[in-house]
Amino acid sequence: MEENKGTTIVVFSGELDKVMAAFIIANGAAAYGHKVTMFFTFWGLNTLKNESAPKVKKGFLERMFGWMMPKGPNKLALSQMNFLGAGPKLIQHVIKKHNAMTVPQLIELAEQQGINLVACTMTMDLLGIEKEEMMDGLTYAGVGAYIGDAEKANTNLFI
Amino acid sequence: MEENKGTTIVVFSGELDKVMAAFIIANGAAAYGHKVTMFFTFWGLNTLKNESAPKVKKGFLERMFGWMMPKGPNKLALSQMNFLGAGPKLIQHVIKKHNAMTVPQLIELAEQQGINLVACTMTMDLLGIEKEEMMDGLTYAGVGAYIGDAEKANTNLFI
Amino acid sequence: MEENKGTTIVVFSGELDKVMAAFIIANGAAAYGHKVTMFFTFWGLNTLKNESAPKVKKGFLERMFGWMMPKGPNKLALSQMNFLGAGPKLIQHVIKKHNAMTVPQLIELAEQQGINLVACTMTMDLLGIEKEEMMDGLTYAGVGAYIGDAEKANTNLFI
Repeated sequence: MEENKGTTIVVFSGELDKVMAAFIIANGAAAYGHKVTMFFTFWGLNTLKNESAPKVKKGFLERMFGWMMPKGPNKLALSQMNFLGAGPKLIQHVIKKHNAMTVPQLIELAEQQGINLVACTMTMDLLGIEKEEMMDGLTYAGVGAYIGDAEKANTNLFI
Repeated sequence: MEENKGTTIVVFSGELDKVMAAFIIANGAAAYGHKVTMFFTFWGLNTLKNESAPKVKKGFLERMFGWMMPKGPNKLALSQMNFLGAGPKLIQHVIKKHNAMTVPQLIELAEQQGINLVACTMTMDLLGIEKEEMMDGLTYAGVGAYIGDAEKANTNLFI
Repeated sequence: MEENKGTTIVVFSGELDKVMAAFIIANGAAAYGHKVTMFFTFWGLNTLKNESAPKVKKGFLERMFGWMMPKGPNKLALSQMNFLGAGPKLIQHVIKKHNAMTVPQLIELAEQQGINLVACTMTMDLLGIEKEEMMDGLTYAGVGAYIGDAEKANTNLFI
């Protein structure tokens, strides 16, 4: 069974609730001894942005995308009941009340557990996201690397 | 091949169309001899609420979530073309016309086929959902149980 | 390892960005020697509609669904930042700028690589979609065929 102890998660969605679910499953799997890879693509990339990164010079289109997309894990919206930002505040409040983990804390735990956080270079290029805007410690790779990881894992999710 | 005959589905979304898809795949897999586990978390939990459950005393935050979330399988919205509730009515109409199964019927079939319906205790706690509000016959467990089931299954989906 | 070289993707969502992600993963897996099946159901079916198909005579309900659903890969909306159709135009623009592939090109590549494109007959029936409205070269099948394919594949995603 040893060789089945692998989990990959494509994090396509950049919504707070889905990102939370992704990290809870990933951290759970790592705690049970899985080799875990999270592959962030499209809107999921916003999760890994460094909130305090300096401004990067961009073309017009890339700036437009930049304006429209949340900058980092504290700016994500909910997939349901977002209510112009009141929903995420409510969830953050409930998380604190129940001593559950926030997304930044879940990311930190993921790093401590050696989960491989991969940013999809193809969609970074497409959406005009630069490495300078991203957190430290990420791997940069394309779909080929994901396919290779998924082949070796038993549990492969798309979130 | 026998050991591959397992399917797990994380039901994160609480939308009528996604929940229908989840149960159609789960019931199909069970019919083909799979051991099937459905793990309901976040908005997916609303699917398993007992519509006629007595009111449970809750704190303010939990009551707010309660007001905002659908109460049971007949109250779910569509992920597309919801039109303030007209879309789900249209789908229900089409289901009847084609003698297809409604969500409550799909749940019943799942129970008859021995599908393990698991409610995620961590998100129940977070969203303030009590066992008294839920249908009978559910299993209550956390992410660790899900990881264990997914390791033994070949097909693992997140819906 | 050979027997693990299989990928199935349930394409439930009919949004441009999710459909792009599905085809990029599918084409990537096929390039790495996987046997790939894409199973289109619910809103995903809109991706495979033939834009220039002649009008099909339909009942009232089926016509209503027809009006509301996009007709083919060039009419899909975005899951995020759709802005009444401006978002998809922006993405198409960026795709051209970066010499990336559009959805019709991704579909063509999938066909060239022998990816099995399956349309779910049950949801076609439910949503009133006729074979005459669909692209050539598709397979028509139900959930049973999907379960069989997923059993033989290692990577099974729901998008």
